[in-house]
Amino acid sequence: MAVNWTEKIDQALFPIEGVSLFVAQAGVKKLNHNDITVFTLKEGTKVAGVFTQNRFCAAPVHICKTRLDSKTNIRALVINTGNANAGTGLSGQQNALTVCEALANELNLLPEQVLPFSTGVILEPLPVEKITQSLPKLAPTTWLAAAKAIMTTDTVAKAASREISIEGELIKLTGIAKGSGMICPNMATMLGFVATDAAIEQDLLNQLIKEVADESFNCITVDGDTSTNDSFIVMATGQTKASQINKVDSPQYTLFKQALTSLALELAQAIIRDGEGATKFITVHVKNAQTKEDAKHVAYAIAQSPLIKTAFFASDPNLGRLLCAIGYSKATSLDVSTLQLYLDEVLVAEKGGRASSYNEEEGIRVMAKDEITVTVDLSLGTAETKVYTCDFSYDYVKINADYRT
Amino acid sequence: MAVNWTEKIDQALFPIEGVSLFVAQAGVKKLNHNDITVFTLKEGTKVAGVFTQNRFCAAPVHICKTRLDSKTNIRALVINTGNANAGTGLSGQQNALTVCEALANELNLLPEQVLPFSTGVILEPLPVEKITQSLPKLAPTTWLAAAKAIMTTDTVAKAASREISIEGELIKLTGIAKGSGMICPNMATMLGFVATDAAIEQDLLNQLIKEVADESFNCITVDGDTSTNDSFIVMATGQTKASQINKVDSPQYTLFKQALTSLALELAQAIIRDGEGATKFITVHVKNAQTKEDAKHVAYAIAQSPLIKTAFFASDPNLGRLLCAIGYSKATSLDVSTLQLYLDEVLVAEKGGRASSYNEEEGIRVMAKDEITVTVDLSLGTAETKVYTCDFSYDYVKINADYRT
Repeated sequence: MAVNWTEKIDQALFPIEGVSLFVAQAGVKKLNHNDITVFTLKEGTKVAGVFTQNRFCAAPVHICKTRLDSKTNIRALVINTGNANAGTGLSGQQNALTVCEALANELNLLPEQVLPFSTGVILEPLPVEKITQSLPKLAPTTWLAAAKAIMTTDTVAKAASREISIEGELIKLTGIAKGSGMICPNMATMLGFVATDAAIEQDLLNQLIKEVADESFNCITVDGDTSTNDSFIVMATGQTKASQINKVDSPQYTLFKQALTSLALELAQAIIRDGEGATKFITVHVKNAQTKEDAKHVAYAIAQSPLIKTAFFASDPNLGRLLCAIGYSKATSLDVSTLQLYLDEVLVAEKGGRASSYNEEEGIRVMAKDEITVTVDLSLGTAETKVYTCDFSYDYVKINADYRT
Repeated sequence: MAVNWTEKIDQALFPIEGVSLFVAQAGVKKLNHNDITVFTLKEGTKVAGVFTQNRFCAAPVHICKTRLDSKTNIRALVINTGNANAGTGLSGQQNALTVCEALANELNLLPEQVLPFSTGVILEPLPVEKITQSLPKLAPTTWLAAAKAIMTTDTVAKAASREISIEGELIKLTGIAKGSGMICPNMATMLGFVATDAAIEQDLLNQLIKEVADESFNCITVDGDTSTNDSFIVMATGQTKASQINKVDSPQYTLFKQALTSLALELAQAIIRDGEGATKFITVHVKNAQTKEDAKHVAYAIAQSPLIKTAFFASDPNLGRLLCAIGYSKATSLDVSTLQLYLDEVLVAEKGGRASSYNEEEGIRVMAKDEITVTVDLSLGTAETKVYTCDFSYDYVKINADYRT
């Protein structure tokens, strides 16, 4: 997978005024590579975050949530790879606080102004001294280098930029993400960081990030396992000359949301495209559902079915498995006699069975592709959703079975 | 897998007075093997059934539900393999009705007194003439031969008997099942048929079968995919000399329920043990939950996680994956700081992290076994559940990817 992705990465990523990036080598798990990344943010930057719903969430997730809830003026982020600081109890919390304090000392900030993030193996104590000792050696870096420094089992760096014009002023957005899609050993975390020079009111940013996450990072699934550390952060420095976005129903908000969603979706899809196990990129589009929730139930039933995912791997147009998953989905409103199922543009099933116009050659032709869209038209309403996933290959089993051996 | 299973099968299966078994060769999909099985039931037999919740359920499932709901006096069951008659719309219904009518003619019954069952490929029209033409050739057979005749991708026949004494009178139960556990190509159906000479009131039997299914066939999961054809039927001929069971709170009911549950659970577990893909049999026991529902949420989160199932395949005591799945389960009441996690008898996690007494050698020793129990003690109440599953191997992908090629 990851076709042409490095090409995209090599395109210029816009620097964001008010944000500086730094990396260091702490040797958390492996030596001689950058495993510490730091963002510093100009005074006045608004920060919002959404986090994993997993109740075994990692120590840094707890701290981030507390600090964002208490409306602390966040001025720095510190991210380590090599250790997730998850399943580590109270000492894990203390270790994350110690890292924040050490960085605050370096930067002349209060410890509460630092957000910590960790990704890597879980249930191991964080080697906190290695991290604190590396902080004085932090060196300025680029967005691309930062994207590489937060990688764990990722095979490509994931980064993207957007630029929009509001009131004749340019607003820039740049983001990086990590997450190893299908490989996902030891719950390899999804982390996403987007910075922008837009000026936006804090409450509005808090609302916006939830809406954007629902259309991007919350629309991808590899195996249904939700990590302990997943975090998505947006930082708005307000350094643009355009005036502050302060209304949901303003054209500025709409434009900014579009750009942020598009950027977040590109990063989220990059996670699905990455991973040695994945050979296909699957979009599941459920439309004309009675409710958004129903659309999601149907989409996830398809996207998370191991039987369907192995059929995609085999390029087998196994329609029965698709119909079956729709049938057992938790959608409240579902009428098997009116729904239509498409593989790309080919109508494959309707009226509760195979479409009379369908022939298997057409199905085989579509299934042979690297990127396939499954469309389910429920004919019951106007709600819709798209979910992105990949296939289930031998390598998924191999990578996950061999991970710690 | 399936160790010593054939040994068990070879033990005598008790005939049930009032039930006769027949098989025939129709050549539905393949020639020269029995693919039609018929049960005939003595007048007065009480029949109850539970069926798949899948809304793409097969034509015969619709017919069975209607006939059982209308309290028809059921006198025969007809089962074909080779074709599931699912996703076949109205003509599928008509085909199933035609088969019932043909068997009713053979047996001098009304068509409504026959229940139809199908298992095999879906989305293909049922070759109804092959089936009706085979019915005059039905030959009497044994329970073991019937267990073999309903197999599709199963590698071993699944059958078991129980005998209990009520009021000094013996009551016998014999059942057969089919289902190919991990292989499950094209939603290979789970079918279970249990007959007994017990006398039991119809409403009580209707209630009992739901309770028993919840403790047996509803406690197994291979990949979370629910088939279009799953059916579990209990037939009580009333030919015993013991008096009729007619109260839920009677010792007779309790005793009979225990025997039926134990028999159904043995059949259900046999489905998990079968399948070339499965190398391990996993019991997930969640106890001291606040509600039964919470216990099930936690158990299924573990039993359906591909990451955990690949770790079992690799014999890797990857505790992080287990804690993570507990954390993202849909249980309403969950306190990560008080729960305890065991692999067999070894305490592996407590207080939100790895247990201080745990050492990896112990974990590796347990994970190397063929049968493993994962116990989660939630310390929040008294509800509990057990769910049975298997691991996720290369062969799962291979079998499911190659199925139609």
